[in-house]
Amino acid sequence: MLTDQQNNDISISKKISNNTKRVVSPMLEEILYDAIPCLDWGFVRCIDYMGDDDAIVQSARVSYGKGTKKVNEDAGLINYLMRNNHMSPFEMCEIKFHLKMPIFVMRQWIRHRTANVNEYSARYSIMNKEFYLPDAKNLAPQSNSNHQGRDGNTLSPDESARVLELLKRDAEQCHNTYVELMNVDENGNKINGDYDGLARELARMNLNLNYYTECYWKIDLRNLLHFVGLRADSHAQYEIRVYAEVIMDIINKWCPLAYKAFKEYRINSLTLSNKEVKKLRSYFKSFLINDSNKKPDEFSKGEWNDFINKLEKI
Amino acid sequence: MLTDQQNNDISISKKISNNTKRVVSPMLEEILYDAIPCLDWGFVRCIDYMGDDDAIVQSARVSYGKGTKKVNEDAGLINYLMRNNHMSPFEMCEIKFHLKMPIFVMRQWIRHRTANVNEYSARYSIMNKEFYLPDAKNLAPQSNSNHQGRDGNTLSPDESARVLELLKRDAEQCHNTYVELMNVDENGNKINGDYDGLARELARMNLNLNYYTECYWKIDLRNLLHFVGLRADSHAQYEIRVYAEVIMDIINKWCPLAYKAFKEYRINSLTLSNKEVKKLRSYFKSFLINDSNKKPDEFSKGEWNDFINKLEKI
Amino acid sequence: MLTDQQNNDISISKKISNNTKRVVSPMLEEILYDAIPCLDWGFVRCIDYMGDDDAIVQSARVSYGKGTKKVNEDAGLINYLMRNNHMSPFEMCEIKFHLKMPIFVMRQWIRHRTANVNEYSARYSIMNKEFYLPDAKNLAPQSNSNHQGRDGNTLSPDESARVLELLKRDAEQCHNTYVELMNVDENGNKINGDYDGLARELARMNLNLNYYTECYWKIDLRNLLHFVGLRADSHAQYEIRVYAEVIMDIINKWCPLAYKAFKEYRINSLTLSNKEVKKLRSYFKSFLINDSNKKPDEFSKGEWNDFINKLEKI
Amino acid sequence: MLTDQQNNDISISKKISNNTKRVVSPMLEEILYDAIPCLDWGFVRCIDYMGDDDAIVQSARVSYGKGTKKVNEDAGLINYLMRNNHMSPFEMCEIKFHLKMPIFVMRQWIRHRTANVNEYSARYSIMNKEFYLPDAKNLAPQSNSNHQGRDGNTLSPDESARVLELLKRDAEQCHNTYVELMNVDENGNKINGDYDGLARELARMNLNLNYYTECYWKIDLRNLLHFVGLRADSHAQYEIRVYAEVIMDIINKWCPLAYKAFKEYRINSLTLSNKEVKKLRSYFKSFLINDSNKKPDEFSKGEWNDFINKLEKI
Repeated sequence: MLTDQQNNDISISKKISNNTKRVVSPMLEEILYDAIPCLDWGFVRCIDYMGDDDAIVQSARVSYGKGTKKVNEDAGLINYLMRNNHMSPFEMCEIKFHLKMPIFVMRQWIRHRTANVNEYSARYSIMNKEFYLPDAKNLAPQSNSNHQGRDGNTLSPDESARVLELLKRDAEQCHNTYVELMNVDENGNKINGDYDGLARELARMNLNLNYYTECYWKIDLRNLLHFVGLRADSHAQYEIRVYAEVIMDIINKWCPLAYKAFKEYRINSLTLSNKEVKKLRSYFKSFLINDSNKKPDEFSKGEWNDFINKLEKI
Repeated sequence: MLTDQQNNDISISKKISNNTKRVVSPMLEEILYDAIPCLDWGFVRCIDYMGDDDAIVQSARVSYGKGTKKVNEDAGLINYLMRNNHMSPFEMCEIKFHLKMPIFVMRQWIRHRTANVNEYSARYSIMNKEFYLPDAKNLAPQSNSNHQGRDGNTLSPDESARVLELLKRDAEQCHNTYVELMNVDENGNKINGDYDGLARELARMNLNLNYYTECYWKIDLRNLLHFVGLRADSHAQYEIRVYAEVIMDIINKWCPLAYKAFKEYRINSLTLSNKEVKKLRSYFKSFLINDSNKKPDEFSKGEWNDFINKLEKI
Repeated sequence: MLTDQQNNDISISKKISNNTKRVVSPMLEEILYDAIPCLDWGFVRCIDYMGDDDAIVQSARVSYGKGTKKVNEDAGLINYLMRNNHMSPFEMCEIKFHLKMPIFVMRQWIRHRTANVNEYSARYSIMNKEFYLPDAKNLAPQSNSNHQGRDGNTLSPDESARVLELLKRDAEQCHNTYVELMNVDENGNKINGDYDGLARELARMNLNLNYYTECYWKIDLRNLLHFVGLRADSHAQYEIRVYAEVIMDIINKWCPLAYKAFKEYRINSLTLSNKEVKKLRSYFKSFLINDSNKKPDEFSKGEWNDFINKLEKI
Repeated sequence: MLTDQQNNDISISKKISNNTKRVVSPMLEEILYDAIPCLDWGFVRCIDYMGDDDAIVQSARVSYGKGTKKVNEDAGLINYLMRNNHMSPFEMCEIKFHLKMPIFVMRQWIRHRTANVNEYSARYSIMNKEFYLPDAKNLAPQSNSNHQGRDGNTLSPDESARVLELLKRDAEQCHNTYVELMNVDENGNKINGDYDGLARELARMNLNLNYYTECYWKIDLRNLLHFVGLRADSHAQYEIRVYAEVIMDIINKWCPLAYKAFKEYRINSLTLSNKEVKKLRSYFKSFLINDSNKKPDEFSKGEWNDFINKLEKI
């Protein structure tokens, strides 16, 4: 996946040991710069970050320093912010990735506008012969119920083999043509002296959407949570979900309290429409009120009050 | 370029005649909904707009109505705003386009983040066999001086013919494979009963970057001027420049005063670095001062003072 | 609230009758330019808009024209988009307001960053002696349970009278000082020939946060729904809620289908945390499954399936 | 300016010494957490940052590591990016401040939308009796030529004294009333048992615009350069310029190469309109061409070519 030179550059970075007065996220430091593999040629590399759980808390309090607040107070505040959708303090943490992914995934990714991007330029440089070929187990027919997704089944072994053969054949041919159009080898020398060769910005149009591209991508935690909320969801295309799940693990290492709150109040939450709330009410009766005093241990007092209030609205 | 059905839909829209209390841009109304051709299959269609030159002026004044200000006062204010880079009033005009362009152009376009986009989804629908083939006169070799552009020359007729043949061959083959992978004809029927067919979201990866895509794109005038400033520039790739130039004409019809100011103070302006300013000073002498009282007619008093001030800084 | 000149300017605007090929929202046209009163001196004036419910649908379909789709299909699509949080088509509608509000309300308002703003400048112009005095019935003590809100009760008549008297006394004195500092009367003439008078940009600092300011504000429908979702909520401060509720009525006139979907799936929805979902499950038993086939009339088939799926997750 | 508790919190933060694999900006580390005074009660405190000059270069190259490029190549690339307005790599550095400033300054500040903010809430907490009183030397009359600025002169000593007395009198009275309205002392106890006291969210409206507020503010380097470009400019109000100039010093410590390029190509550059370019041309003659071969040492070859091209366009 990586060249020797790239592996070498990464291992040099990993040996950096600087002193800083800034807050540090020890678990994230451990995997900093590592290229975590995604799909066949892709990766996610966290290459820099700012802030941690504590930074969220401090900015919510507009504080002068860490002060004497305890960790469990911090967790409570982070849960409160997430539960009540006060998301601006989560913008105070920032993270930067180096990403490698197929172009058709990049085209979904880039729709998230509140982020900073520098993409590898095929106007400037020559694209490697690296294209995505799915695993046979991820080749699925079109879903009949979902117009924009795939079926839960996989293709038959025969059909899979045929699909992969066709994808491979076309991708290889298109890259061969791409190089032939530019008339330049990897060292920048002309292949055939009789031709000028086509400009890179034009030749690139012959590449397929499964070719890999790379970018630097920087985003704040609030928008990153929004990103993984959409892209790690079961309705997202498998190929972007693979990346979103790796990023979720990284968030967990970086800001574990925020991550836990996000799982509790977003990922594993359930939103009921007005109609659904009314229907649910018809299933319930007043027995709820009777239960309202019996707060279970796993609920904080505030959480239990919120819950009883919601049920009474139901 | 357009199907009969599409032409029909457009001509129905063009017959709409509604009454409105809103401001109207008469010249833009004339071309509303028209598909202005770009490249071989693409187009720019303005499909809605809000505001005009007057809206810029009114928002700069936070006014209650048109009042009694004259047109030449409006032009003066718009020039003043542009000259002094007070761009927020230009955000008060908004325009919406329906665009069709090759995917590699779309990938540059989408980098402009302060805009609203809905793109045609190849997860949901099947892509037509429409791909970009450049005109022979636009096939150019890589520039030697500019790492990310093309040379001013064109390829030889022989080489051009070969390039176009290769581009055509690969694009056609990739679309044939795309259809074969999905195993679905245009009416949604299976082509070959023995196969399930691959999900659309996967099959699309076999298409080339010169395939056409479509989107709705909405943006305010300030950000649109920034867009054309970059994309109609001679350093932009020819294929996006074609679109940017069509959009410049549309801006001229929509907000002619803002357009004129933009040409004067941005497109045809010149920015000198500190070093350049100092060097220029060495060419000049005090003769400038002598000329400072002779205001030429084409300068307003404010503009002339600005200029003399700039020269004296030089 | 408005001067004769302002009323005159507005009534001239209301008499405009232009022809346009653009879509028109007839109910919104009726109130276009009207200053709808808010608080004692403030207002909301819709002064321009782009698009309607149909524009949402067309951009979701990247369509060439209205075509033959029926209104109930449009409603179904808008509901689907809102239910599944596909919000980008709602960005395709844009609206522009002229607003007048106290500065402390403006300071909350401006936190919504995805919008365009031109505010009346007190560096450039002199502020009128217009300040917010609450109605006695809206004077409430600090809430004991909510650190950032007021109590449900109102102050005693005596205390109310005293509060209003103090607010009025200070606001009047501060404006008197403001004028005295600038040493300029309403016509721009010096009041006292012995003094230079202080620059407006400095004198304004003596005004109170309840002084009224004005702005032009432009925003797309998606972000406007987010705005009213937060600001028309019972946790929002009363003074901004008054404006948000007027804007909700305007949205209802402008895009009634989008508004209805927003009420159903956002405003009157209920989100349960993971913990709450689990607790709810303990109240339920398998009886739900038994009910799953009995779709009530008020549910569409898709909505009923979603609901049963949610309950089974519970 | 700071309480003992606040000074203590800051000095604890300054003693942090963490190990990190991230890049570090040594000069910025030295002043990290320090409250740099601005105006009478305000400050700028840099409390976190991400990246340095090297991060700009690496993201422009989408690189895997520092590699073997030399510092002078980095400076050249940063100059090239700034000169050609390729600003996206500058978005890859991020910085976070704790700021304290008068509310009327905050109202200008917040207009910069591409940033993250958490402001101290006067709905939640009680505002201190800290208000801005200008230095006598900064009290200036309204400018006659500039509608939105102050004159270069200062007020007479007598008038200054009177102005400061009035500002002080009103600010003190308004805060006294503010406390009286809430009926709460600094420890949260009722002052007068006969009254409920007004909710904080209402009482705050009695404060003047020169009262100090605080916020956490996070922004990327590209947008920060835009901010200081506008706010450190001589047309900006003195009170915000004081902050912008402190921030410029911080940028210089943080990313010295980017700062130098910014001074050369933005702050000290000169933009000429089309009309000005044409007029300048009439002053010049062909003598420029004669000089075009004599590249001065302070110009790089690329810079000199750019300059000659510009002059020939002139």
